[in-house]
This record gives sequence, structure tokens and C-alpha cells, in this order.
Amino acid sequence: MKKVLAEILTIGDEILYGQITDTNSQWMSTELDQIGVRVIRKTTVGDTEDEILSAFAEAEVRADIVLITGGLGPTNDDLTMPMLAKYFDSEIIMNESVYRHVKEFFESRGRQFTEMNERQALVPEIAEVIHNELGTAPATWYERNGKVFVSMPGVPHEMKNIMSTLVLPKIQQYFSTPFIYHRLIKTVGIGESFLADKLKDWEKNLPPHISLAYLPSIGQVKLRLTANGEDEATLNRQVQEQIDLMLPIADKYVYGYDKTSLEEAIGQLLLAKNKTIASAESCTGGFIQHKITSIPGSSKYFQGGLVPYHNDLKINVLRVKEETILAHGAVSEECVHEMANRVRELFNADIGIASSGIAGPDGGTPEKPVGTIYIAYADGEQTVTKKLLLTKNRKLNIELTSLAVLNLVRKSLQT
Amino acid sequence: MKKVLAEILTIGDEILYGQITDTNSQWMSTELDQIGVRVIRKTTVGDTEDEILSAFAEAEVRADIVLITGGLGPTNDDLTMPMLAKYFDSEIIMNESVYRHVKEFFESRGRQFTEMNERQALVPEIAEVIHNELGTAPATWYERNGKVFVSMPGVPHEMKNIMSTLVLPKIQQYFSTPFIYHRLIKTVGIGESFLADKLKDWEKNLPPHISLAYLPSIGQVKLRLTANGEDEATLNRQVQEQIDLMLPIADKYVYGYDKTSLEEAIGQLLLAKNKTIASAESCTGGFIQHKITSIPGSSKYFQGGLVPYHNDLKINVLRVKEETILAHGAVSEECVHEMANRVRELFNADIGIASSGIAGPDGGTPEKPVGTIYIAYADGEQTVTKKLLLTKNRKLNIELTSLAVLNLVRKSLQT
Repeated sequence: MKKVLAEILTIGDEILYGQITDTNSQWMSTELDQIGVRVIRKTTVGDTEDEILSAFAEAEVRADIVLITGGLGPTNDDLTMPMLAKYFDSEIIMNESVYRHVKEFFESRGRQFTEMNERQALVPEIAEVIHNELGTAPATWYERNGKVFVSMPGVPHEMKNIMSTLVLPKIQQYFSTPFIYHRLIKTVGIGESFLADKLKDWEKNLPPHISLAYLPSIGQVKLRLTANGEDEATLNRQVQEQIDLMLPIADKYVYGYDKTSLEEAIGQLLLAKNKTIASAESCTGGFIQHKITSIPGSSKYFQGGLVPYHNDLKINVLRVKEETILAHGAVSEECVHEMANRVRELFNADIGIASSGIAGPDGGTPEKPVGTIYIAYADGEQTVTKKLLLTKNRKLNIELTSLAVLNLVRKSLQT
Repeated sequence: MKKVLAEILTIGDEILYGQITDTNSQWMSTELDQIGVRVIRKTTVGDTEDEILSAFAEAEVRADIVLITGGLGPTNDDLTMPMLAKYFDSEIIMNESVYRHVKEFFESRGRQFTEMNERQALVPEIAEVIHNELGTAPATWYERNGKVFVSMPGVPHEMKNIMSTLVLPKIQQYFSTPFIYHRLIKTVGIGESFLADKLKDWEKNLPPHISLAYLPSIGQVKLRLTANGEDEATLNRQVQEQIDLMLPIADKYVYGYDKTSLEEAIGQLLLAKNKTIASAESCTGGFIQHKITSIPGSSKYFQGGLVPYHNDLKINVLRVKEETILAHGAVSEECVHEMANRVRELFNADIGIASSGIAGPDGGTPEKPVGTIYIAYADGEQTVTKKLLLTKNRKLNIELTSLAVLNLVRKSLQT
């Protein structure tokens, strides 16, 4: 079967000059890989006519499909649309449906629709327009001699939405892509090398058409099983058989599959067990609540939360005993024990969680250096506390602590 | 003055397939920019002989200097060194000083020095070897017809160390580099096209050696001024003159410069005015508190926050009047007005902020569709409220609302 080759082309001086991080192209690579399209090159060029045109020409020689992001704003430094028109030798016209969408987009937000905004509706006549429901710059699709160019906005959430819902299905339809079946197994609470060591015998016995990759991210490891074949149902069954062999070895770390996030998995557990939760956060500063409430429908199980950053509030609002803080400090097992229990009572929830620690970069002492953090879980029957010794990096400490707290909830609910 | 042009070439299947994030090339761009080298392209190719060789040849045509990372490991899939030898038509030889370094590197760590490790000392005879004190794979430097190739390891801390201490000074010495001066002006509360419209006359009158770019991200627009010249002090002064001309037109949107974030700017304002703040968040679920507390030292001005997600908590913990919620609903101007004032009192802060709305994707009504959000700011003298009409996307609504609330704080403190 013919392998479909793709090139990812990113346009923008801000990426060339290192002023913004390109997170799009990694995400696009992963998505293309999922549908069996092989990325052979990634290219970034600046907002320069010649550079853009030569990048188009070079990519068309190498790849079957050229995916372009960026350079679609309404200002004069955005050149992608006029360069596509020039490259495909097409007039630029005002697209009626884009015009209506952009006008409606501004007016429904009570914002003025100016001449500058109108420019977003100018597209090459030859292009097929792909609707951008989350923004104003449309995506466009071009076909020539069996090859495809797709231009998408560079704003990450707009690009991801367009690519997932419209562009990837269109690519699968246009090219006959081989069948590749992926399954992600998501784990938390164990490092990559320890997990790999536990699973080495299982990995050795995987059938040859199923391969394994470890994809580590902050505090988590994803296992990706990839199977090649003709028939989806067979591959699905064969991959599930391997997962069933793996679970007895590592199920205490597995919280979900594929796109499920840890906060989503916890939401599903809380709903299934009909439990509610409340959070009292000191060093995590609201990040755990943010994670929980980022899930649609979380109001069904999340009662609320408190960030008593100043110690007075731990005592006056949360009702932690003053003696506890005087005797042990706010960064102590005793304090988070009370915080989790008090927020549970105060917020009338089944489960209370808490964090208190020294996130850094300053504020450490010899006994409690930066990175010393206590966390707690309380459900009326039991209170679980844990001491973490993390890093000197504030953002990383906030993220790792939040994961550890959510993992305490998961472990209590999963058993 | 001749402009030095650079191309960054990243080699590795793991980047093409999206399995690791390429953080190197952004860092390299920023560093090259600082010494006046203009990056004209970034390219990523896989571990494939033909792809690597053609990337070398294409880059040599376009750029004066080609900076290569990756593909230097001792395993068979690492091809950068043999391909460089082939490209420069040179023999591969064992480099004595690299050999001694690698042997010492392993032995001093009590690790076995194997035949596999020995391969790290094999370099093209034509190459000038650049010492890698933090790792085993050396960097190498090649000159031909006034152009330079540099190969460096892909491990970020090794590459950064080699580039900062050895490669950048060598580039400055080899080429006579011009001076490039950048300034970022950061704005919030206005869209790209509206800002561009306000600034069009100012932009038209910029001197020819100073150029402007608009860099939009969610809810924010950065303006980048780039100036070319010989002398840093002159450019600094000339760019500042242009900023001084721009501020009377747009200063109500400007919150900071260069790397300053909005939450950092607000922290500085609060510290300067010796004010404290507390947050009562419904639809933003703790995200505003997370933003504020992500800044080191925020405990000096952030008292704490409350997320009274369940309406009972708005009444019982935050002490919003039950009548207010019965008469107007929790998503109302009246409710956020009370929330901001109550959290200010309850948390003993100078400033109280609040949010309440329908983040979505469900929960909308004909009168209050998804995306209807109220926000408030209270400081004892005044209470400011605002109604936002946002999107159907939950995460985007949370982010845009948080920005809008922080912007209310900024506007009140900046005046």
C-alpha cells in the first residue's frame, strides 16, 4: 500500500525568531501518525514572499500533502493567503459564507466589524473553504495533480479543532491510508524506567505486529500500543488481549485510556460512586480546582474550594486550629490533615483534599527546603496524608503536587 | 553591512513523529537573534540518509551558517556524523582527545566503557572538534567557501552549554554580525485588527530601520518592534522614542514589556501600591487564583480565594444574600457585585474580584446562553462589573474570563 507522505510548514517570523513556542507541529505530527500518514519533514519560514513560495514548491516535490499553519491574520505582515493565490495562480475573492461568519463573530460579541476584519473573508478562488467555528481566519484546501495543500490558522485551539473535526477526515477520504490502530494506556504515580522494568517480560512477548512506545510527560507515563493490519475489529481484539495481560502487573498505576485525563477519570469515578468533593489548597493556589472544573459537568460533583493562602484564613475561614499551626507550622502533616477534614465539613462534601508546602523558588528552611509539600485526602472514614519532596521549580511543583493529590483521590475511589 | 543568515536543522525521527517536543530550536533562535544572526529557516528531517544529505545541500545554498542538532548517539540509527563525513568528502577518524574524554567520562562515573561508547570519538577528519564537557558526543565545526556548518548534540543542556560558551563566540568571530534590537509591547483588552487600526498612522511613520509585527495569542496581542543598526544604545533610544509616540494612542491596553506576563504586571502594581487581593470564582473554577499564585512572591499580596461552585456555598460561606440569587440568579451582575465585595471582607483584602457565568458546553438558557459571564472588581471605594459574551468552548471561556478579570484589576491600579 502506498504510504502517504506529509510535510508540515509553519509560517511566521515570531517562530523563526524564537518569540513563541511552536506547539502546533508536534500535535499535528501525532495526529497524522494516528491515521497512518508519515511526516517526512517540518519546515518553518518567516513572513517573506520568496521564502514562502519556495517552501511551497519544495514541499510539493517531496510530499503528498502539505499542511500549513500561520500567517492568516488580517494585517499586512500576514502573507499566507496571497502567496497561496499566487502559487496556485488564482484570483483572490471575497467569500460570502466566511464574510457572514466573521461579521456574525464580531457582532455577536458586541464588537465592531471593521474593514480590517472584512479582509479575513478574502480567499483564493480555487480554494475550498473549511469553516473555522472558533475563530475568524478560515482554513482552505487545494488539490493539484493528486497532491493536497491545506492552510490552517496558527492559533492552537482553532487549528486543533479544524484539524480534528474536518481536515483529518478529509485526508483519510482523499488518500487511502493504511489501517493503523493505536491505544494509549495512561498511568500516573510511577516513573518511566520503573514501569518499563515491570513490563519488560510482557513487552518481549508482544506479537510482532503490535509495538510499544513509552511517552513520558510531567508526572505521567503513557504507553502507546500500535498495531498494523487490515481489519479494525481484529486489531482492537488483539490489542485488548495484550492490555488484559498487562493489567495484573500494572493496574494500580493505570487511570484511563486514550484521551481520558486524570481529572476526567476522577470525575467519572465520583459520578459512578455518587460522591462530591471539595478542595483546600495552599501551595497549589487553586490549580487542583482549576483541573477539576475544566471538565464539563464537574458542577455535579465539585462542591467548591478554598485557597487560604494567608495563614489567618486557614484559621478564621477554614477553621484549622491555631494550635496546630503554632505547633507544627502550616507546612505540616497535621495541618493538611485538618485542612482536608475541615473543607469537607465546611463545603458539605463527601471528600476533602488539601495541599500545603513550599512551592519556591524562595521560602525554604533547612528543615523544610523548597519542594517540601504535604497533601491529604479525607472521606469521613479515613484520612490519608503524604509528604512530597519535589523540585526548586515553582510551576513544576504546583503541577506535580496537583497530580499527586488527584492520584490520592483516584486510588481511594478505584479500590 | 552583510546580513548573516542561519538555518537550524534538527535531525531525528522522534521529533518528526511528535514523540518529543523540540525545545532546542526556539532557544537557538533567540540566542542567534541576540548576536544579530537572522534565522531564515528551521527544518526537521528524520533519521534517513537521503533526507539528511538533501537538507544539508539545500541549507548550504540558502544560509551562511547551518546549525545542526541531533543524530549523534552511538547507535546505528544515528546518522549525522557519517552523513557529514560523506557531505564534506572526508574520512572518519578516531579523535584522540574525544576518546580520552569519553573514556574518562564513563570511568569517573563508575560505568563500563564499551566498544559502543568508543564510537563517540569517531569524527570526520576535516572537522574541528568542539569539546562537550557535559556529555560524550562532541560538537564539530566545518568551513567551506565562507560558509559554516556546526553539528551539536540534541540533549538540551549539552547543546545550550556548548552553544553559549563556544559556538556563539566562534560565530561572532568568524562573521562580522550586525546588531538587532527587539522590544515587545504587551497589550490586553483589544483585538489585533482594532489595535492595528488605531496604530496605522503611527506604523506608517516608523523609520525604515524599525519594523513592526503583531503577535496575537488568546485574549492578548504583542507588538514587536525590531530595529537594525550598528549601535545598541542608539537603537534602544530610537525604539523608546517610537514607544513614547505610541503610548498616547494605546496606553490603556499596554500592561508591560518583553517577558512580563499580565499576572506578573499586576503583582508589581499590587506591591508598588501596597495592596492585597482576594478572589471569589465560580465559572473560572480557581484559574485566576492559579495565575496569580504562579508568580514567585505572590504570597505578599494574595490573601486567598474561594471557589463557591455550589450555590449553597455562595450563600453560606461567602455570605451572598439568598434574595440576590433568588431574584437574579447566580449568573448576574448583582451576584458578582456581592461576591467581589464579600470576598474582600471575608479575606481581609484591599481588593476583591469575582466571576460567575456559564462556561459550557452545557447549561445555557435562551436568556443566558453558554458564554454569558459576569465579572467584578471591588476595592471599597468602587465596584466595577462587566458582562462578557464569550464562546461555546469551556476552556477558552475560562481563560478569556480570567484575563478579563485580571485586566479589570490592572486598569484600576494603573490609573
